Amino acid sequence: MPVLPQGYTIRRLEPQDYDGVVETLKVLTVVGNVTRSQFEETLNYWKETTVKIGVHSIPAYNPHVIVDDSDRVVATGTVFIERKIIRDCGLVGHVEDIAVAKDQQGKQLGLLLIQHLTKLAHDQGAYKVILDCDDKNVGFYEKCGYRRCGVEMDHRL
Amino acid sequence: MPVLPQGYTIRRLEPQDYDGVVETLKVLTVVGNVTRSQFEETLNYWKETTVKIGVHSIPAYNPHVIVDDSDRVVATGTVFIERKIIRDCGLVGHVEDIAVAKDQQGKQLGLLLIQHLTKLAHDQGAYKVILDCDDKNVGFYEKCGYRRCGVEMDHRL
Ligand SMILES: CC(C)(COP(=O)(O)OP(=O)(O)OC[C@H]1O[C@@H](n2cnc3c(N)ncnc32)[C@H](O)[C@@H]1OP(=O)(O)O)[C@@H](O)C(=O)NCCC(=O)NCCS
Ligand SMILES: CC(C)(COP(=O)(O)OP(=O)(O)OC[C@H]1O[C@@H](n2cnc3c(N)ncnc32)[C@H](O)[C@@H]1OP(=O)(O)O)[C@@H](O)C(=O)NCCC(=O)NCCS
Repeated sequence: MPVLPQGYTIRRLEPQDYDGVVETLKVLTVVGNVTRSQFEETLNYWKETTVKIGVHSIPAYNPHVIVDDSDRVVATGTVFIERKIIRDCGLVGHVEDIAVAKDQQGKQLGLLLIQHLTKLAHDQGAYKVILDCDDKNVGFYEKCGYRRCGVEMDHRL
Repeated sequence: MPVLPQGYTIRRLEPQDYDGVVETLKVLTVVGNVTRSQFEETLNYWKETTVKIGVHSIPAYNPHVIVDDSDRVVATGTVFIERKIIRDCGLVGHVEDIAVAKDQQGKQLGLLLIQHLTKLAHDQGAYKVILDCDDKNVGFYEKCGYRRCGVEMDHRL
């Protein structure tokens, strides 16, 4: 089992991660002009959004970061939990927005982050965890224990 | 533009659709032993779960049915709205759990349902709407205006 390099920590995303997360996400896609207050508002929304099952309540959004020994964000990703009717009112985890800072890639950080988010979703009761990726990243996710199961399609205006 | 056959209506899923939805979803996958009270509890959870953007609030889950002239469910599907940091704190619609009753397939009901859910998500501000499907259904979703954009991967215990 791989472990985090010395000095690195994985934890839930916090408001002080604003600069680091916005920067890190740029390796993935267009982030745009996200202000600190928009970032904080999104974090608040994520925090207060829960999945309720009977008397239990779990967070629907689970954004995480890996930080180095100076608390600098080096990787980020999230899993949110969807509640369904099928599969005995089953829960599904959706892994989204995985990014490892350019100068930190190849240190098993991506793998450890995916394993952490996947375990978290299963621990919360998800019968499966899914994600969508580019063809070029299939090998990476296979190393994380995922297997190809379908096609992602999109619709844009 | 296709239109619903005479007598058919598309509307939000309601508690009285219990039998029809559970039956219709069986063409898609294992539904399991979902009791009426579990169904109603799920609907309540969906109803109270919102996406908040500033002072606006929109439903996160948007489950729909198509019913015939005797209010029998002939098709079901949903779109839920995820709130992100990327793309200027963008919203993404996730289309899930599309099923058309066996004896009602081939009447454009699937297409109309997808178009309805897709428009709903865009109207609520989603910059894209995505879904995962089997290889064998790619042609159907292409007719609905979607295009292949990635690979779906899953992790099960
Ligand atoms: C893809 C990404 C998340 C991988 O993270 P990473 O920390 O660089 O990868 P890791 O070091 O954890 O790699 C784990 C294993 O997967 C392998 N691997 C990494 N990327 C791979 C790829 N694209 N294809 C095949 N294998 C890959 C590594 O070689 C390593 O194998 P090993 O254990 O045998 O040495 C990261 O490179 C990234 O953020 N890329 C840009 C953004 C992006 O594409 N995000 C995902 C969108 S779907
Ligand atoms: C797949 C499904 C949703 C399609 O719904 P439907 O109401 O039968 O399809 P429609 O009548 O709306 O079809 C619209 C168009 O797509 C075409 N089409 C339908 N299924 C298709 C397929 N699998 N591949 C290619 N084209 C397809 C139709 O021929 C029609 O074309 P036309 O407008 O040129 O006549 C439905 O058959 C179904 O529920 N199947 C079982 C469950 C399932 O697979 N769900 C989707 C999981 S990803």
